[in-house]
Amino acid sequence: MSRHDFLNALHAVLGDAGLLRDGDLSAYELDWRRRYAGRALAVARPADTAQVAAVIKLCGEHQVGLVPQGGNTGLVGGSTPDASGDQLLLSLSRMNKVRALDAANLTITVDAGCVLQALQDAAAEQGFLFPLSLASEGTCTIGGNLASNAGGTQVLRYGNARELCLGLELVTAHGEVWNGLSGLRKDNTGYDLRNLFIGSEGTLGVITAATLKLYPAPKAQMTALAACDTLDAALRLLGMAQASTGAGLSGFEVMNAFSLDLVGKHFPQLQQPLARSPWTVLLELSDAESEAHAGGLFEGLLEAALEAGVIKDAAMAQSRAQSQTMWQLRESIPLAQAQEGLNVKHDIALPVSAIPGFVAATDAALQQGFPGVRLVNFGHLGDGNLHYNVQAPEGVPAKEFLSRHEPAINRIVYDAVALHGGSFSAEHGIGQLKRAELAARKDPVALQMMRAIKKALDPQGLMNPGRVL
Amino acid sequence: MSRHDFLNALHAVLGDAGLLRDGDLSAYELDWRRRYAGRALAVARPADTAQVAAVIKLCGEHQVGLVPQGGNTGLVGGSTPDASGDQLLLSLSRMNKVRALDAANLTITVDAGCVLQALQDAAAEQGFLFPLSLASEGTCTIGGNLASNAGGTQVLRYGNARELCLGLELVTAHGEVWNGLSGLRKDNTGYDLRNLFIGSEGTLGVITAATLKLYPAPKAQMTALAACDTLDAALRLLGMAQASTGAGLSGFEVMNAFSLDLVGKHFPQLQQPLARSPWTVLLELSDAESEAHAGGLFEGLLEAALEAGVIKDAAMAQSRAQSQTMWQLRESIPLAQAQEGLNVKHDIALPVSAIPGFVAATDAALQQGFPGVRLVNFGHLGDGNLHYNVQAPEGVPAKEFLSRHEPAINRIVYDAVALHGGSFSAEHGIGQLKRAELAARKDPVALQMMRAIKKALDPQGLMNPGRVL
Repeated sequence: MSRHDFLNALHAVLGDAGLLRDGDLSAYELDWRRRYAGRALAVARPADTAQVAAVIKLCGEHQVGLVPQGGNTGLVGGSTPDASGDQLLLSLSRMNKVRALDAANLTITVDAGCVLQALQDAAAEQGFLFPLSLASEGTCTIGGNLASNAGGTQVLRYGNARELCLGLELVTAHGEVWNGLSGLRKDNTGYDLRNLFIGSEGTLGVITAATLKLYPAPKAQMTALAACDTLDAALRLLGMAQASTGAGLSGFEVMNAFSLDLVGKHFPQLQQPLARSPWTVLLELSDAESEAHAGGLFEGLLEAALEAGVIKDAAMAQSRAQSQTMWQLRESIPLAQAQEGLNVKHDIALPVSAIPGFVAATDAALQQGFPGVRLVNFGHLGDGNLHYNVQAPEGVPAKEFLSRHEPAINRIVYDAVALHGGSFSAEHGIGQLKRAELAARKDPVALQMMRAIKKALDPQGLMNPGRVL
Repeated sequence: MSRHDFLNALHAVLGDAGLLRDGDLSAYELDWRRRYAGRALAVARPADTAQVAAVIKLCGEHQVGLVPQGGNTGLVGGSTPDASGDQLLLSLSRMNKVRALDAANLTITVDAGCVLQALQDAAAEQGFLFPLSLASEGTCTIGGNLASNAGGTQVLRYGNARELCLGLELVTAHGEVWNGLSGLRKDNTGYDLRNLFIGSEGTLGVITAATLKLYPAPKAQMTALAACDTLDAALRLLGMAQASTGAGLSGFEVMNAFSLDLVGKHFPQLQQPLARSPWTVLLELSDAESEAHAGGLFEGLLEAALEAGVIKDAAMAQSRAQSQTMWQLRESIPLAQAQEGLNVKHDIALPVSAIPGFVAATDAALQQGFPGVRLVNFGHLGDGNLHYNVQAPEGVPAKEFLSRHEPAINRIVYDAVALHGGSFSAEHGIGQLKRAELAARKDPVALQMMRAIKKALDPQGLMNPGRVL
């Protein structure tokens, strides 16, 4: 059967609205970071789960590889087609409805193509919080968030996307629908298929809907900045905050001085409340009681930390606007970095206790190998997740520096990560970008099991080929 | 090769201390509920992970089925051998050490055979909480807890065993060791093997160690009882408690009147602070601040609930002793039930919002089918998990009633569970007991995937044969 027959069969299933064959498809073919420019055989835009199943069945019959895509905001080239022009792009963007909200069960059920922010808004309208929150939330979809097990800024309190999901509906590589949309908090009836599909980046099947946890909206949310001399001190502050605020601590972000220098340089209008310091911590407290209660807790914590010499200075946001400014400082780092020039990004995780040792050793190794190199180091310290990014030395052309040194820089960083018991992909996934890294660095026994599972569930190898494994 | 050769080869690996062949092995062969009396070929008691791997390799070479066992406290016949005398019992009980505690990372790493209470104690000694807590904690092991994804009384706040585990060390069905003992809170490097093995009841391989989450010990823990006229009211109380105490609510247990009647009858020395009521709720608050703060929160909640007519009466524990008495009431229900006579147990989960409708419909259906039948209904309402147990009518011989009606009772209950979107195994697992139920009731697409995974990871079918699938 020819490609022509395949496209005709697809058209019979999807109609004009559901199948894009001509015109500019670059919105689907080029990834967000513009590193992977692919070409799709066509773009399928199914309207419902039955159409997704029909498309996957056709792919199986015609041996066509399928690349699922949500908001196309991934950072590892996981959701754009390769350059062959042979892969079908499956966009879930038309399946974007909130199906149901169950207030007494604290759950919401949504289509996979529902944009994260729309989901947050649907929860907020009924007085609930859906806590997954990340920079691309206005565009990314919950299906993509689950396929890549997204993290974000609220993981410390609420967990990754994985921990927020109670059930999935999905289509297998055989084109069969599994309705596992359970709103259950306990269900020990067999293997954990839900978690197997979460984080599998579309390589085992396609997530079409999910049932997710909601939380009562906190009564107050407060933010503070604190200045620390060392990462060890920042860790001591983390321990104090966890002990004194319980689960109220919903954010604990760290930024090195150079991160905020870049923000100051490229966004001078953003006020920086504290004097320059080796490390600045952003703390966020979500409180079930009141502003006054949260304020009292925060003041007590910061005073105790000042007295103990753990922090040198602190500033509490006195209004929602001040709080937003503090978060803006943190969230402007990637943009400031981009304006400064190309850089090598590392999304790594470590045991929290290993972070000071890792940073000291790796900073030193990079300075030795590449004198004057500038390190933008920031991230979710409470989760052990650093965005440890390497910028060319001042005055050195970034593009040339990168094309020459990126592999050696990656080797130094990832070797150090391995030595300190960490992960070379904390929250961004593998996709195409880190596939070779996975093959080289993942435990061989684990790799063997992953390959066996892939073969068992996708024997023809048509689900997002060339990603992860 | 003969069975004799196999045993000799085992002995060469394990030595005298590690292999039991003769004498009374009933402690390993008979399950806790005394429903499954099996016979083991021998009992292997490896001293370390390398010995586990060697044993599994030998099982593969000699085609011997392997049944892993922790504390042998499971409720579904998952960890005792069948009657053939051909299965090797693998006891993890000698592997019971705490390997490491990382205070800054809030993690503890332990051998699989570590008794749950020993693990709780090791955490408490350093000022931390390991929150998994269940009736058998003095005997059960963390390996068994993870293999069966145990629940218990603190799930509402801290999640099931699954949510408390950051990493596993395990031996595959091929006898290879995977060291996945990560203390990482984020790690998106490929498929979620950890969660696949958690809850797989030893049918994919053997868990030999785990890295688990710790929490700062709460500063105060308070308990209260509240009386409700209906389950709807109990759900309203749950919503109020979740909104006003945030993550502080660590227990929300419900008990019907007949449960507490039985406790009163068989344990008259236990004080029941509230008058008899259709439903009694036990609430527990874990507070990061102080007794005073917890007390204030609790009083505010209970007063608001009284004023709103959600509860009729309430009693707050004024001391640790009173608090323990309240928990004792709850925990004595299974014992009181056992003293009253045999009964049919159902460990079910439902969307929290579906519970009142399920209970009304199922109570009515059972009364219609078996007039006078007595329903012991209690459980973790906050998690949607009921222990919905059926006792013979007053004066009717329990054994005869059960042997005649158990299948019909199960059918009524499990049909109603399915109709209300629930699960027929919330926290006890499948084992042998619910294997037929799984085959009959689990979604066929999910079953197909489970079978494919089982075949991929355990192609010879030697890992805990006859369990789950």
